[in-house]
Amino acid sequence: MYRTKTCGELRIADVNMEVTLAGWVQRVRKMGGMVFADLRDRYGVTQLVFSEDSNAELCERAAKLGREYVIRVTGNVSERQSKNANIPTGDIEIIVSEMAVLNEAETPPFTIENNTDGGDDLRMKYRYLDLRRECVRSNLELRHKMTMEVRRYLDNLGFIEVETPMLIASTPEGARDFVVPSRMNPGQFYALPQSPQLFKQLLMVSGFDRYFQIVKCFRDEDLRADRQPEFTQIDCEMSFVDQEDVIGTFEGMAKHLFKEIRGVELTGAFPRMTWHDAMKYYGCDKPDTRFEMKFVELMDIMKGHGFPVFDAAEYVGGICAKGAASYTRKQLDALTDFVRRPQIGAKGMVYARVEADGNVKSSVDKFYTQEVLQQMKAAFGAEPGDLILILCGEDTMKTRKQLCELRLEVAQQLGLRDKNKFSCLWVVDFPLFEWSEEEGRFMAMHHPFTSPKPEDVPLLDTDMGAVRANAYDMIINGVEVGGGSIRIYDSALQNKMFELLGFTPERAQQQFGWLLNAFKYGAPPHGGLAYGLDRWVSLFAGLDSIRDCIAFPKNNSGRDTMIDAPSVLEPAQLDELSIAIDIKK
Amino acid sequence: MYRTKTCGELRIADVNMEVTLAGWVQRVRKMGGMVFADLRDRYGVTQLVFSEDSNAELCERAAKLGREYVIRVTGNVSERQSKNANIPTGDIEIIVSEMAVLNEAETPPFTIENNTDGGDDLRMKYRYLDLRRECVRSNLELRHKMTMEVRRYLDNLGFIEVETPMLIASTPEGARDFVVPSRMNPGQFYALPQSPQLFKQLLMVSGFDRYFQIVKCFRDEDLRADRQPEFTQIDCEMSFVDQEDVIGTFEGMAKHLFKEIRGVELTGAFPRMTWHDAMKYYGCDKPDTRFEMKFVELMDIMKGHGFPVFDAAEYVGGICAKGAASYTRKQLDALTDFVRRPQIGAKGMVYARVEADGNVKSSVDKFYTQEVLQQMKAAFGAEPGDLILILCGEDTMKTRKQLCELRLEVAQQLGLRDKNKFSCLWVVDFPLFEWSEEEGRFMAMHHPFTSPKPEDVPLLDTDMGAVRANAYDMIINGVEVGGGSIRIYDSALQNKMFELLGFTPERAQQQFGWLLNAFKYGAPPHGGLAYGLDRWVSLFAGLDSIRDCIAFPKNNSGRDTMIDAPSVLEPAQLDELSIAIDIKK
Repeated sequence: MYRTKTCGELRIADVNMEVTLAGWVQRVRKMGGMVFADLRDRYGVTQLVFSEDSNAELCERAAKLGREYVIRVTGNVSERQSKNANIPTGDIEIIVSEMAVLNEAETPPFTIENNTDGGDDLRMKYRYLDLRRECVRSNLELRHKMTMEVRRYLDNLGFIEVETPMLIASTPEGARDFVVPSRMNPGQFYALPQSPQLFKQLLMVSGFDRYFQIVKCFRDEDLRADRQPEFTQIDCEMSFVDQEDVIGTFEGMAKHLFKEIRGVELTGAFPRMTWHDAMKYYGCDKPDTRFEMKFVELMDIMKGHGFPVFDAAEYVGGICAKGAASYTRKQLDALTDFVRRPQIGAKGMVYARVEADGNVKSSVDKFYTQEVLQQMKAAFGAEPGDLILILCGEDTMKTRKQLCELRLEVAQQLGLRDKNKFSCLWVVDFPLFEWSEEEGRFMAMHHPFTSPKPEDVPLLDTDMGAVRANAYDMIINGVEVGGGSIRIYDSALQNKMFELLGFTPERAQQQFGWLLNAFKYGAPPHGGLAYGLDRWVSLFAGLDSIRDCIAFPKNNSGRDTMIDAPSVLEPAQLDELSIAIDIKK
Repeated sequence: MYRTKTCGELRIADVNMEVTLAGWVQRVRKMGGMVFADLRDRYGVTQLVFSEDSNAELCERAAKLGREYVIRVTGNVSERQSKNANIPTGDIEIIVSEMAVLNEAETPPFTIENNTDGGDDLRMKYRYLDLRRECVRSNLELRHKMTMEVRRYLDNLGFIEVETPMLIASTPEGARDFVVPSRMNPGQFYALPQSPQLFKQLLMVSGFDRYFQIVKCFRDEDLRADRQPEFTQIDCEMSFVDQEDVIGTFEGMAKHLFKEIRGVELTGAFPRMTWHDAMKYYGCDKPDTRFEMKFVELMDIMKGHGFPVFDAAEYVGGICAKGAASYTRKQLDALTDFVRRPQIGAKGMVYARVEADGNVKSSVDKFYTQEVLQQMKAAFGAEPGDLILILCGEDTMKTRKQLCELRLEVAQQLGLRDKNKFSCLWVVDFPLFEWSEEEGRFMAMHHPFTSPKPEDVPLLDTDMGAVRANAYDMIINGVEVGGGSIRIYDSALQNKMFELLGFTPERAQQQFGWLLNAFKYGAPPHGGLAYGLDRWVSLFAGLDSIRDCIAFPKNNSGRDTMIDAPSVLEPAQLDELSIAIDIKK
């Protein structure tokens, strides 16, 4: 028996109980003839007391305890004289009568505290020590709690979790696959799934009716803060449903999670915004709606007054930052530099302050009368003290994206992106296709199984770009936490989609033949959604990177520096797999 | 709105309700001016009625419905005249007033019935149709229910589910890894985990205290009925525990599953058997204890009487099949052929019948007096009507394994392996090492992190083969459903283990360095267990192969014939991955 209690559960009511605890030594303090040690486990921290007077030998051993030693102690629960209100066990301490050192520890390379002195790379190399820090471990506890609640919610609604295979076939469409050479089938490869999309559609053809799976997915893409080569999806699909059914079910799940995990009761339906409006008013398909600051288009007001930059632009638009007229010239120059960065690519920024008397003072005053500037002010509904920031450009969509970045940056500076405030939203009516400059053709915006809105089907032959999809994304605080669509279940329409996407019938058959064949045997109407678990957890935990809610993440080169993976194989392993290394210079 | 009710929920109390149902047409019967159709969904089957009298056009359309068409109908719930007691909806039928065909279906390649006419290969190729059969789908429903209960049980005990990485480093020890070439690190490979063993131990070092994960694992081994290249483990680990704590926790889980899933209340502790006794009495480490038929060793009684085969043998032993004296000569010859098959490899079989008068009549009567045969009879506790079957051999362990196969075969013939009877058992005290003839050295029987029994530690230096491990397997009906061990948490002992297993310090560091390093920073005592989910589900569902409880299994060549994986890659994919195909002739 290593312990009778954990380090997190003793309270004042337990005084005089004899207990045995086990855990890690957080720190040791010597004071006069006493030694105090904080003993830590997953459940909390408990203060241990050793006294020279009552047991000199034990006290001497305690004084030698090092940080992170693993010990077991037995002693009596006693009321503390100076209580610590910051921890739940702060009213008591243990007067230790016996101690066993279960394992010694070398001094860790960084402190095991929430405010550690360890840098990112060091903590990743020693991730097993990083995970001892309460702030890291609590993210994983939250993750567990969320998956439990997700399963409880879906199980209650009759969803069945079905495991789909990890070793599947590679599909050249879409993102790059990770592949796995098959020893038993020389020269052939499995692929790891980018998502169980096709399998969940098959399960609907099989009559499973309501499927879900919390599942690892894999994408061999270049990495950044919110991307990992392996990530986890809450993958769902339903039969005999339309878009409203799916949205209702998963809005319900979001509300359930907010309530159970964050204690936030969200009432009423989530707002909906068309993709078209999201682009027009926020410049992206995942607007952060914790704050307003909508785009206002100014082409009618600001063009034709002799300012050549605006006059030559297809798009002129701006945002109104409430109360930001006090921005200094230096701050405004920094914003101009921000939008001029190559990643954003604007040529410049025009600004206008609304002064206390209501007059507008802009950086382009020499081209505009106060009357025109007042029209502009009115278009924003701007008031004294507000700051108006304007971008323009030759390409409407590109300029909107630049303005979107500016909006987010300004909001960040004004403290409007509060991690404890949540703004949920459905973006709907996505275009079915998007034009690829690179490929010189229309591509599926989501995937080729997404259905067009029935009323837009005639447009397939006349105006592909105008066809809207039965597709929807859930956006929270500017993060796309999930998305899905109603699928095509009609073979003829599916074949037409492939034709429009430039697939020959042979290529469609080669790549998706098994799904197309399945559809011949009675496919039900179906649709679904996939939530990104890593994003959900990050959102609820207030993290900046999904990496912080993953136990053993990879770095931006796809390496696990702790275990040093990937690594080279023995030549015999390559031989067995019938492959050879072939690094092109 | 596609439906207001499912096909499984309407009862006599619902009569006169107007409902809309959707599903698949199971079958259509025409009788006089009526058409009857069975409509099926995941939840059940409901009878639809179309009448020429009330709606001739509708009835005509119904008559044309094909098997597996997907339809939606609206109609009134009505009491059936001839009720069907075999299905829960058998009291009612729907008088259909409206019908829409949502999708037509080609005639399926086999019947969608529990007793289908489809062969194994055909059903695997069209697995999405096979999954429509109630008997297949119910295995997956059971699987879902089991994982929900496993999570509920473990969550209640404070276990946290943590996802460990799928893209890890290859370890040449043990079974063969599946590997994944890294595009970003040319010439290097990830491996897919054979189990999260090392990561779960790291999580204990991190202080997670109680971890679990229901997780896909991968082994590139040659396949058979109870092996798939990807399989699912219920993987668990606990800190500050000894063997009794782990056994208690997971025996509790087994009882919880039996109660919740099978409605079986198991009382009392599961019996324990040492590995030594399991080998001695059952000839294997996973004895089927639904029936007795223990081995009896006969060396003392049967050797030295001039029967050269027995006299030359190291091991002579047998089983007593109760009431099987009526076995014919033909049946006995078949059993002799069975043990002589090359997979089993016995040279022959001796049998003896206990006759009604108590006399023993054996196949080796010319070498033995009735007195000796009576001693043998007594050793088995055999009674009139019993059949004694004896094997012998030069190698005790090999002969026991042969006798084990014979015991299982005879029990099968006698109907003693009842799928609705469950016999649970812990096998404990495994040897820490086993001798490998192939390698000419001792190998770890489980893995190199398994701890020896403290009292056997001195034997490490003197008698490796006699050292017992703190290892345990749970056996149900002869199936190893799980197993685990208490791990070594002391660096010095771990290093000694590697030394005994023939690892140079460099190789140990290269392969397990990250775990050995982690142990330097304060590892707690810990241990755990992994259950095979596929085996548990198969056991509860009474299946012969784990394949039947996996949605999309692979065949014995590791192929998924439905999606035709694995498959060849495009040359550009290989180039990006810096590998080439290199098939050795």
